[in-house]
Amino acid sequence: MRYVSGMKKRNHPVDDIRRFLEPGPVVLVSSAWKGKTDIMTMGWHMVMSEEPSLVGCFIWDRNHSFEMIRKSRECVINVPTVDLASTVVRIGNTSGARVDKFARFGLTAVPGRAVKAPLIDECHASFECRLVDSRLIQRYSLFVFEVVHGHARATPKFPRTLHYRGDGLFMLAGPTVSRYRKLFKPEMLRA
Amino acid sequence: MRYVSGMKKRNHPVDDIRRFLEPGPVVLVSSAWKGKTDIMTMGWHMVMSEEPSLVGCFIWDRNHSFEMIRKSRECVINVPTVDLASTVVRIGNTSGARVDKFARFGLTAVPGRAVKAPLIDECHASFECRLVDSRLIQRYSLFVFEVVHGHARATPKFPRTLHYRGDGLFMLAGPTVSRYRKLFKPEMLRA
Repeated sequence: MRYVSGMKKRNHPVDDIRRFLEPGPVVLVSSAWKGKTDIMTMGWHMVMSEEPSLVGCFIWDRNHSFEMIRKSRECVINVPTVDLASTVVRIGNTSGARVDKFARFGLTAVPGRAVKAPLIDECHASFECRLVDSRLIQRYSLFVFEVVHGHARATPKFPRTLHYRGDGLFMLAGPTVSRYRKLFKPEMLRA
Repeated sequence: MRYVSGMKKRNHPVDDIRRFLEPGPVVLVSSAWKGKTDIMTMGWHMVMSEEPSLVGCFIWDRNHSFEMIRKSRECVINVPTVDLASTVVRIGNTSGARVDKFARFGLTAVPGRAVKAPLIDECHASFECRLVDSRLIQRYSLFVFEVVHGHARATPKFPRTLHYRGDGLFMLAGPTVSRYRKLFKPEMLRA
């Protein structure tokens, strides 16, 4: 695992993570526990609140990351773009029980501000998360995280993310358009 | 409210709703209660299980649909495409307490197979849902639905959906690609 000091990302407000997560991209979830790290792919997640900034995440209990995240009560949700598509699939194919995924896939672990789980430098955005509700894990494998610090690249403004449809098919993000913005009631827009 | 008998959609297996919902589109949620109907826009939702087919949905308690869905314990999740973008915004701007949204927006209500809530004929896909867990409504405004019947148009195979980023901005769905499919382990693909 290689740590770099330079952060190419800027801070991103935690109450605006919906800009990246609400469109529904596949994300890479990184974690750390007892000196080891892991990365998993995740397609089932949702914004649950803006203030506090909450995200609900389905993490399968057979995934190696499950216990690491449950015990450390932390993770980082990283947003990859289409250039990382092959890596995203390979991470999903591989168990972290046997492999250091940062090393195996040539990814760069960057220290977080608020959590011990590392950020993935190659991703467009990274959201440091703390587990704030573990009561739904047993019934639904649902982890409720609070995003406590956000990081995002300044450019491109809107990343070309990957959106999984199941069965090996990805929908690629198309353009982001502002042409419907004038139709919204003013109170539904940022000041 | 206008009911039509012809169904242009085909049945779609309930264990494959992720094809449409996992990429994260804005959806229109239709409901019926005491002879009235309503439609709301929804961006915060996630697939929670394939078998049974569960979807978690954030429904704000100030939305007129909230009580209609909570009391009827049913809804239909409809997937609109980009041609309905203006209507999607206008539905979000309008309260169903004062307006029949099917009439106001020229949408066609089609009877469901399993629920009393109407399908929106103009949407690409419609998923009939029953509320199976109401325990998370008070804490998180989170409704856990089981999809009990699915409908989808045969063409286009992959609809051009709308993905909300907040602040009046939509990401439009780009192409769906199969070129990464060969990288997946066979057990992660449909037989």
